Amino acid sequence: MTEETQSINSDMPQPADLVIQARWVIPVRPRGQALEDAAVVINGGRIIDVLPVAQLAARYQVTQTVILNDHVLVPGLINLHTHAGMTLMRGLADDLPLMQWLNEHIWPAEKKVISEGFVHDSTLLGCAEMLSGGVTCFNEMYFYPEAAAEAAIQAGLRANLGLIVLEFPTSYAHDAEDYLQKGLNSRDNWRGHALLSASLAPHAPYTISDETFGKVLTYADQLGIGIHTHVHETQDEISQSIAQHGVRPLQRLANLSLLGPNIVAAHCVHLQPEEMSLLAEYGCHVAHCPTSNLKLASGIASIAELLMKGVNVGIGTDGAASNNRLDMFSEMRMAALLAKGTSGDAAALPASQALEMATLSAAKALCMEEKIGSIEVGKMADLVAVRIADSEILPCFDPISHLVYVAEREQVSHVWVAGELRYQKLAGQTGVYADIEPAELKEIIEEWQPKLNQYKA
Amino acid sequence: MTEETQSINSDMPQPADLVIQARWVIPVRPRGQALEDAAVVINGGRIIDVLPVAQLAARYQVTQTVILNDHVLVPGLINLHTHAGMTLMRGLADDLPLMQWLNEHIWPAEKKVISEGFVHDSTLLGCAEMLSGGVTCFNEMYFYPEAAAEAAIQAGLRANLGLIVLEFPTSYAHDAEDYLQKGLNSRDNWRGHALLSASLAPHAPYTISDETFGKVLTYADQLGIGIHTHVHETQDEISQSIAQHGVRPLQRLANLSLLGPNIVAAHCVHLQPEEMSLLAEYGCHVAHCPTSNLKLASGIASIAELLMKGVNVGIGTDGAASNNRLDMFSEMRMAALLAKGTSGDAAALPASQALEMATLSAAKALCMEEKIGSIEVGKMADLVAVRIADSEILPCFDPISHLVYVAEREQVSHVWVAGELRYQKLAGQTGVYADIEPAELKEIIEEWQPKLNQYKA
Repeated sequence: MTEETQSINSDMPQPADLVIQARWVIPVRPRGQALEDAAVVINGGRIIDVLPVAQLAARYQVTQTVILNDHVLVPGLINLHTHAGMTLMRGLADDLPLMQWLNEHIWPAEKKVISEGFVHDSTLLGCAEMLSGGVTCFNEMYFYPEAAAEAAIQAGLRANLGLIVLEFPTSYAHDAEDYLQKGLNSRDNWRGHALLSASLAPHAPYTISDETFGKVLTYADQLGIGIHTHVHETQDEISQSIAQHGVRPLQRLANLSLLGPNIVAAHCVHLQPEEMSLLAEYGCHVAHCPTSNLKLASGIASIAELLMKGVNVGIGTDGAASNNRLDMFSEMRMAALLAKGTSGDAAALPASQALEMATLSAAKALCMEEKIGSIEVGKMADLVAVRIADSEILPCFDPISHLVYVAEREQVSHVWVAGELRYQKLAGQTGVYADIEPAELKEIIEEWQPKLNQYKA
Repeated sequence: MTEETQSINSDMPQPADLVIQARWVIPVRPRGQALEDAAVVINGGRIIDVLPVAQLAARYQVTQTVILNDHVLVPGLINLHTHAGMTLMRGLADDLPLMQWLNEHIWPAEKKVISEGFVHDSTLLGCAEMLSGGVTCFNEMYFYPEAAAEAAIQAGLRANLGLIVLEFPTSYAHDAEDYLQKGLNSRDNWRGHALLSASLAPHAPYTISDETFGKVLTYADQLGIGIHTHVHETQDEISQSIAQHGVRPLQRLANLSLLGPNIVAAHCVHLQPEEMSLLAEYGCHVAHCPTSNLKLASGIASIAELLMKGVNVGIGTDGAASNNRLDMFSEMRMAALLAKGTSGDAAALPASQALEMATLSAAKALCMEEKIGSIEVGKMADLVAVRIADSEILPCFDPISHLVYVAEREQVSHVWVAGELRYQKLAGQTGVYADIEPAELKEIIEEWQPKLNQYKA
């Protein structure tokens, strides 16, 4: 332990609901620190102390203690860009060019199959997958946000739900105004739930008119909420914007006053240096989705450069139809590896930074930096334990590096959200969710897969 | 089942040691085929039939039947380039520039710690990891091949062991001639073992003189064995070769008559179009190691182009010090994803081709195409079952695509080498090896990790 450890001093032992003792605690802030044999003390869902195990007994009267001798304890991972509502379309059509994938498979399936029930079930399946992979919060964008809210509440996952806006009709809404009103009404129904928050989610510059962006901006300002959109995912959408609007999409967003510290721009694969500066200047946040960008052949985002310019970058899985896993362990590793391989610098995007992107940077992007993203006193106890004990992943010389380059989500053993245990997988056992039954997930798959089969590749 | 199913016709039921029935059997040849509810019949370690389950009873009198209702059965994966002897150095020093990584960590550790015992133990740990990840054969290059042979025999893994050659002294040998003689003597000790074969393994053009390459060529011709070497891994080694020899390394190998259908060239990250043609023309094989190439910032090999030129490409993990997993599932996915992301074509390197690279193409590269690499009558029963049943990886619309983009090694449930069950992990249980005890692996780690600690980053 170092002197930077924060603790509350008191002469009398204080009460605490829960103490988690771990071989290593990685607080994320300060970056690169791994506290050995440390304990995280939790009361009322919040972290009230981080201290050496040896000092615990004198200071706290503890209701429950979880001892994790072979584990790394990290802040819950935050999936900064996903469409959990698409989880049932996992692998529906792979290895196809983007437009064929969309036109012949994804859009027809969405047109015929999507409903409130589908989105609920698909999101619940996605939540289960994410929980088992150490995700405690996700930034969602899909139709029927109310159905997604219900699934997130059942799973016990923190969610920032995108109130999706498009210009064209779907089963969910008929025009931009209808999308906006449905989204805002939906938000009214779950607003105030401790685990839920909302962003306005205009789908992308190529699907949203200037007028609608204007409305989005007004609502975002009035309600004090964020904006979540796709930006510069493909070269095509940039060419199209130049043809249609005379400027590249990011410049168009700047002209429309959309850029600011409350916007999360997903993808940002194709950026010119001055566009990186623009993002930095306005304090915009980027959701890097490396696997999806490769799989759909969109390209490789220049993340090392973006970070050097001072842009805040989190990591997202994108949806299961284009990844095909909602797995933040894979994404952290992919982000770190691609940054090295494309920059020619093996020291680029080190493990500690990849972990920070998947936690604290994403919390910043969601304007939740005060609440989640690191193991610090005062923050919510969104925590993940990762078991480093199987011979297949040993030896372990550096727990942070191990977490990114060696461990996988199968090593996740415990997931707490606001101090509540939401998922647990003990050594050699099957994982168990607090509030999701395996039979429920099985039924979901059995119900929907036959309806989707006709759209598969 | 299709009409292409191969079977032996007979009126009387024939005896068979083992039948494996699976939800899907993916034979790899023909590419893209998935046989539903099929059975693989094995006798004397060889595949004697592949047929619909419904036809089984009339044709075979079976000693043992394994029924895998939720599983995909594929040929065992072949790791075409690795240094299993380095597994104990997993994650010893990450996120460092290549020369600092080698000079300050890997080489000092190798100089002081490597011994016959170290290589045995490290290889056994690597074999255990590979088996649990569905690898049934590996193409190894490291010091003390005899120690590696012993470990592979214990694990029951098929191995092609590189008889390593360097010019500089190590604890293993003092000069090129000594390396050669030690390698050949070692081979004499295990030659003829059913699971073992050998290649000459001159480390790389930048570490081997023309004279030594000449000797390697002579021995390879005399003994009828392959050559395994590193080629064009980094831009630096190419510049160095031009300065020292006046030609790029691959041209130098061509000039020395080293190129041919018995050479496996690992990495090939930096190739000019005419070098790709050279590889195709000579029938050389490439071992693509995508994760290692990214992690050490070597770059991204142009595999889509190489395949288009007709070069046979397999996949390797490289060693655990530069990956940090000996995980062919990760590598298959990475190969497929990178080919799409760098070519701009989402249809590049489809899942079926990635699986072929990890099986049949690698078998070709090792001149073992007649023996392993696909599920075909007459081949050895090197087989892997992958369980597709957990909600985290469902639904599954296409088993081949699922294997590459969704499944991970944690889903491997059974691994057979020549019809012998070498690893098994039943649902919700810990994996079990036929001939490796968990305690043995634990002891190995406890013995060696303290000796390596001083070299960590």
